[in-house]
Amino acid sequence: MDDCLLLDAGSGGRASQRLVAQCFLRHFANPLLERLDDAALLRDLRGPLAMSTDSYTVTPLFFPGGSIGSLAVHGTVNDVSMLGAHPRYLSCAFILEEGLPLDVLERVVADMGRAARTAGVQIVTGDTKVVPRGACDKIFINTTGVGEIFTAPAPSGHNARPGDAVLVSGAMGDHGLTVMGSRESLSFLTDVASDSAPLNQMIADVIAAAGEVHVLRDPTRGGLATTLNEIAEQSQVCISLEEEHIPVHESVKSGCSFLGLDPLYLANEGKCICILPEEKAEAALAAMRASPYGTEAARIGSVSDGKAGQVSLRTRIGGQRLLGMLEGAQLPRIC
Amino acid sequence: MDDCLLLDAGSGGRASQRLVAQCFLRHFANPLLERLDDAALLRDLRGPLAMSTDSYTVTPLFFPGGSIGSLAVHGTVNDVSMLGAHPRYLSCAFILEEGLPLDVLERVVADMGRAARTAGVQIVTGDTKVVPRGACDKIFINTTGVGEIFTAPAPSGHNARPGDAVLVSGAMGDHGLTVMGSRESLSFLTDVASDSAPLNQMIADVIAAAGEVHVLRDPTRGGLATTLNEIAEQSQVCISLEEEHIPVHESVKSGCSFLGLDPLYLANEGKCICILPEEKAEAALAAMRASPYGTEAARIGSVSDGKAGQVSLRTRIGGQRLLGMLEGAQLPRIC
Repeated sequence: MDDCLLLDAGSGGRASQRLVAQCFLRHFANPLLERLDDAALLRDLRGPLAMSTDSYTVTPLFFPGGSIGSLAVHGTVNDVSMLGAHPRYLSCAFILEEGLPLDVLERVVADMGRAARTAGVQIVTGDTKVVPRGACDKIFINTTGVGEIFTAPAPSGHNARPGDAVLVSGAMGDHGLTVMGSRESLSFLTDVASDSAPLNQMIADVIAAAGEVHVLRDPTRGGLATTLNEIAEQSQVCISLEEEHIPVHESVKSGCSFLGLDPLYLANEGKCICILPEEKAEAALAAMRASPYGTEAARIGSVSDGKAGQVSLRTRIGGQRLLGMLEGAQLPRIC
Repeated sequence: MDDCLLLDAGSGGRASQRLVAQCFLRHFANPLLERLDDAALLRDLRGPLAMSTDSYTVTPLFFPGGSIGSLAVHGTVNDVSMLGAHPRYLSCAFILEEGLPLDVLERVVADMGRAARTAGVQIVTGDTKVVPRGACDKIFINTTGVGEIFTAPAPSGHNARPGDAVLVSGAMGDHGLTVMGSRESLSFLTDVASDSAPLNQMIADVIAAAGEVHVLRDPTRGGLATTLNEIAEQSQVCISLEEEHIPVHESVKSGCSFLGLDPLYLANEGKCICILPEEKAEAALAAMRASPYGTEAARIGSVSDGKAGQVSLRTRIGGQRLLGMLEGAQLPRIC
């Protein structure tokens, strides 16, 4: 039974201490975490700060292109970055199911440690709960991130303005279709992989290159269409897209058409939407394309003072289609 | 079915937006949260900062003296306070089970809102996942807090020194026994209630009164004995306690003796351990007793340079008993 997680690992006693020492401290190694006080002491953060939280419940735990571990780092790193901030520190809280194979936990934690090192953030404080068998499904992870905002004013969904260009940093729908495919073992989905990636460096480069960025958002749950609807509503503007310019991988297109899905509503985990003055668009695109995570960046539309809150798509054959928010649930536990 | 939570409330689409607007924004109301960007923008934090995270999985959701909602605020507020910090901002992430009655969620969220206002903290960013029926048990909540450290050096489990006095701010074991009693419907446990409470103001008063505090810790999971063992190990000192001075309510004593439990290993959610120079002890105790949460504060022992890592108890009849860390799991899902 030593290869499965027992309830006492969440008791706060000796077994908890062992799990922390043998698994978490080893993979997250840093002096701030190693203090193991009730809270981490962060000396060197300079405000204004960005703070963001996400719980990750994705199933399966491992999928082409990532795992719940790497996703839990990338997702929060990206959310903090979208405020024009350098993410610095993450907290990490696990809810684990009794009986979880310890090697599965170890792989997830190792993925988190690697993802954190790659993104240049430190996991400085944590928590572990173990719940009885059946009270949760294997592993849930919460990460909360803080970072230093380096741009003023900070980008916000409220700041899109008529005349702005709308960019995306790459192809839409990879993460959502990949998770769906792994879960249902859809064998025809062979060449899709999650786009899960840390965007903090690319975002910093884009802001440096463009000088002025009005909106940064990552189109996760609900996909591009839903996120743009939120922005159009918050900024009280109209957003018009050109379907032919929205990058979607061929494999995603064909998978979606087979399954009756729309890639514009599928989750992404390594892409951002960037809305900024038209004349800054080329500089921002160049900065995106110089990043390994932005090679397929594209200008996909523009902002106008048309009907506030509306997102419309000019289709390949010249028609106009209104894109609403996602209604209903496309797929639970996508992230 | 409108009175139960549906999966689409976690989809990131229209239904998520509705839940956020109708429930979370209403109870947590503040301008920082209302921006609804990917991260909250915190302008006014001054370092050094304390950051702490906890996930709450307590069952039942409601118990005498509190609920998972108030606990999720108090627990994290207290952890941040233990670094000698003013907690300022919390993130809040829900994992909710499909089919959860919406009035249950509403009560929990209302409790969180009230607890946050009482503690003087704001919930500024959040996340909601809804998982299919059976994938979690009703409601799990993560809160992560940041606060401003106002004392130097910050208290730490590593700072206990020979000659220090050991204080607790009140009676031990109330929370643990209450949750156990509510879960098992133990009818003889009629006059126990959780001690769940925000300690930030009391902690600030204690530090102001004493001037120098070496260790602050809240004895949650694993209780007083386990937490003191951690401190004795981290500080490489010996801690000696006087059983007769450790406050334990009569109802807890009798409940524990009936159930074969030791109150020194039961969780507390509104108490702190304070270790500081002997000559500051009276001032600290007076400050605790002036708080509604510290009326039963007591000096329970002292720190010596005896065997490093050891915690011993002088019993009422004059014997010596070694207190180890909690071995095994006393009760899962206590917080």
